[in-house]
Amino acid sequence: MQFSAKQIAGILNGTIEGNPDVTVSTLSKIEEGRPGSISFLANPVYTQYIYGTDASLVIVNKDFEATAPIKATLIRVESAAAAFAKLLEMYDQVKRNKTGVSKQAYISDSAKVGEGLYLGEFAVIGDNARIGNNVKIYPQVYIGDNVTVGDNTTIYAGVKIYSDTVIGSKCIIHSGTVIGSDGFRFEPQNEEGQRKVPQIGNVVIEDDVEIGANCAIDRATLGSTILRKGVKFDNLIHIAHNVEVGENSYLAACNVIAGSTRIGKNCMFSGQVGIVGHLQIADNTIITAQSGISKSITKAGEVHMGSPAFDANKYRKAYIHFRNLDNIVQRIDKLEKQNKQQQG
Amino acid sequence: MQFSAKQIAGILNGTIEGNPDVTVSTLSKIEEGRPGSISFLANPVYTQYIYGTDASLVIVNKDFEATAPIKATLIRVESAAAAFAKLLEMYDQVKRNKTGVSKQAYISDSAKVGEGLYLGEFAVIGDNARIGNNVKIYPQVYIGDNVTVGDNTTIYAGVKIYSDTVIGSKCIIHSGTVIGSDGFRFEPQNEEGQRKVPQIGNVVIEDDVEIGANCAIDRATLGSTILRKGVKFDNLIHIAHNVEVGENSYLAACNVIAGSTRIGKNCMFSGQVGIVGHLQIADNTIITAQSGISKSITKAGEVHMGSPAFDANKYRKAYIHFRNLDNIVQRIDKLEKQNKQQQG
Amino acid sequence: MQFSAKQIAGILNGTIEGNPDVTVSTLSKIEEGRPGSISFLANPVYTQYIYGTDASLVIVNKDFEATAPIKATLIRVESAAAAFAKLLEMYDQVKRNKTGVSKQAYISDSAKVGEGLYLGEFAVIGDNARIGNNVKIYPQVYIGDNVTVGDNTTIYAGVKIYSDTVIGSKCIIHSGTVIGSDGFRFEPQNEEGQRKVPQIGNVVIEDDVEIGANCAIDRATLGSTILRKGVKFDNLIHIAHNVEVGENSYLAACNVIAGSTRIGKNCMFSGQVGIVGHLQIADNTIITAQSGISKSITKAGEVHMGSPAFDANKYRKAYIHFRNLDNIVQRIDKLEKQNKQQQG
Repeated sequence: MQFSAKQIAGILNGTIEGNPDVTVSTLSKIEEGRPGSISFLANPVYTQYIYGTDASLVIVNKDFEATAPIKATLIRVESAAAAFAKLLEMYDQVKRNKTGVSKQAYISDSAKVGEGLYLGEFAVIGDNARIGNNVKIYPQVYIGDNVTVGDNTTIYAGVKIYSDTVIGSKCIIHSGTVIGSDGFRFEPQNEEGQRKVPQIGNVVIEDDVEIGANCAIDRATLGSTILRKGVKFDNLIHIAHNVEVGENSYLAACNVIAGSTRIGKNCMFSGQVGIVGHLQIADNTIITAQSGISKSITKAGEVHMGSPAFDANKYRKAYIHFRNLDNIVQRIDKLEKQNKQQQG
Repeated sequence: MQFSAKQIAGILNGTIEGNPDVTVSTLSKIEEGRPGSISFLANPVYTQYIYGTDASLVIVNKDFEATAPIKATLIRVESAAAAFAKLLEMYDQVKRNKTGVSKQAYISDSAKVGEGLYLGEFAVIGDNARIGNNVKIYPQVYIGDNVTVGDNTTIYAGVKIYSDTVIGSKCIIHSGTVIGSDGFRFEPQNEEGQRKVPQIGNVVIEDDVEIGANCAIDRATLGSTILRKGVKFDNLIHIAHNVEVGENSYLAACNVIAGSTRIGKNCMFSGQVGIVGHLQIADNTIITAQSGISKSITKAGEVHMGSPAFDANKYRKAYIHFRNLDNIVQRIDKLEKQNKQQQG
Repeated sequence: MQFSAKQIAGILNGTIEGNPDVTVSTLSKIEEGRPGSISFLANPVYTQYIYGTDASLVIVNKDFEATAPIKATLIRVESAAAAFAKLLEMYDQVKRNKTGVSKQAYISDSAKVGEGLYLGEFAVIGDNARIGNNVKIYPQVYIGDNVTVGDNTTIYAGVKIYSDTVIGSKCIIHSGTVIGSDGFRFEPQNEEGQRKVPQIGNVVIEDDVEIGANCAIDRATLGSTILRKGVKFDNLIHIAHNVEVGENSYLAACNVIAGSTRIGKNCMFSGQVGIVGHLQIADNTIITAQSGISKSITKAGEVHMGSPAFDANKYRKAYIHFRNLDNIVQRIDKLEKQNKQQQG
């Protein structure tokens, strides 16, 4: 994948300043630019780096004015940021354009797969699974029985999907993630010495969902654990049985959502947040890092902090006093002394 | 798996009210009942849903009295809840009844496997491993050298078990879990530039243990990391080297237990709990979510909260004051003002 | 692997006391010693156990004086602790000395592998990958396209390494860990309905790095996520895009480091620590368990505690007052009463 300045200028509808035959094969940050890479300058804060960068090509805004000599060939465009973003996406698509079905993969006779499938080595597609068109399934993925995967979804190496899971279109699931494992439900021992509550529900993941690496999403006891359209998960997130996460909600790394809790739309949770089971979290709720939610949040758009969490502004105020508690106690000591003297 | 109302009534020893030939193939909640599913009504709170449910069959208590027409066929039994639980378990067992040894799995010549083995595609059974009877090993599982697995244990897709691990009977281990990885122990560099303390112990898991998805359980430095009979783990739990978890203790998601700590019997830890190394935790200890235990707990049956944790009731009281600290400081401000005026 | 007392005494340059023909096949703690195992006594606290141990062989210091009869054969050496550590390492090396390339593994035609490779069943080595000498790759590992792995590195079963990752020499990566997954970056929807920021950087892991089980290390958006020489990670750690961890820093289990944060050298973070994105953490920083870092730490060698964290000594002092808040409020109540009486 070598591209000349001429080719890239053509794609971006830009004009070349310098050697039009210089070629690049990768992208870089301007402050880390290496020969053979293309970079960009949009934010004036980084202007200083353009004079020293080793990048072979730099995309700049139309009106950029150099105040010193520049080694790199320039491509002038309307918006350097937008042009670079376009290149990033093209590069990304080319890089990930794996195709073909490995002979070392296993597809059950009763499974149905669509057109344009990439199926990597040692992947397994179970009985009665239904795989849409243009799906990419990397090596060592496990797709259990009766699983459905929608069009244009990518599943990276080693993802494990238990039976009956439903995955929508244009989803991305990263390596190591487990979908459909049993919910954590046990009851006092019955006559046959059983404690486990059978988990026979499933997981439903709607379109445009991205799930990071090494997450664990449990199936429902009965019914479905649901991730709605546009949900985005970072890595190492735990979703318990029967949880529902609303449209376009973003959960950062290591969130832990306990059983049957329902999260609204457009929520944003920072890292290591925990939410107790059977709660309702309103739309647009923001939760700060490491906070623990122990009660339902009924009003949309609030910011919560602490463990157990409450209003973030109030928390921050209380926390300032907490940091200062030693001084506060000294003030009380002094007051007590004064009162004693007055009474004495 | 289609069953008629007649067949199910026979299994449950119930009487039919409505069409005895209606068939069902799955189970559902009464409020989410779909055609072709069987549901149940036990809790009076849900009675309202029976009149609108689309479930084809509903199990009800013998003495249930309808106050409006019901579409579904009813099956009357002594206890609707117990009958449904029985159906759940039967359904679960049928669904998970995988059998046969895949030709695309690898079994070392020196390994011994019992009768009734299910071994999925691309699974590996290492040298000198011993696998009991009726064990289910799903695709892409790795069983290292010298590992022992007891009868009737199920190991889901992609579990990785390092050498020398001992797993009991009737255990369930969910996808992505790693058992027997090295403990995290390093020492100041020795003459040969080594820092790593060799980890040559193993992991011992007794009978009836269930471990959720993507857990990581380290082998002992020397001796064994032990999970006693009946221990239940949720997802994403970290167990360090030489930890021992006592009988029937339940750990919720994302617990972190540091090296050489010993946890008693019948403990219940909520999500994201952390415990420092080399501690003793007494039997029946309860720890609330996100708490951090920094000292041994010697008295059985206590509830601990906070980070570092102490008695939960005291914590909750202190936390109420913490939330109120701004007001408390204002009261001190006022007292100081009063004292100043009196002295002035 | 059976060794006689005579052989071991030879290796350790020690003298035998008792039966020189007794054989052992494993190592044990003195208090858990089983027949057929070798143990050691260095710390006087454990002296009591030597009289009852079932270990067949015990290594003792040259000057050890027994005060009662001992069943086991003794080997006297200069330093029992050092001698045992040597045995541990030898045992460890023998145990893990896997060799050979499985016919059931997949190696891309364009990949290059070095000498002395161990490649387990169902492992995948992608296009243009470069694998050094004496590398051990366990079953079901995935090495993506263009990945580089240095000499003498060990990668345990089921590790998933995305394309373009660079791994140094003498590294150890434990099962379930994912390296090179996409960073968690999304932006407001663009014209084509895209939200995802393409993640085209990579992960660079320098020499002598050890990574525990089920960690997730994201690739950089642009540039590299970097783990410097000698970094050690426990299990279940999340490293976001563009993070850099400095030389010889140790992160305990379940640490969460957000995007673009740079951690200095020789840092020590306890379990469940979280660090916000875009921060700088100075060299030699220590962070206590469950703490959350929300601001850069600019001075080397400090200890931080709390969420949000501040100086650990100050935190501990404040926390003592927090535990005592109920009493503090009672003192204020009393002061208010006194003032009221004086004014009344």
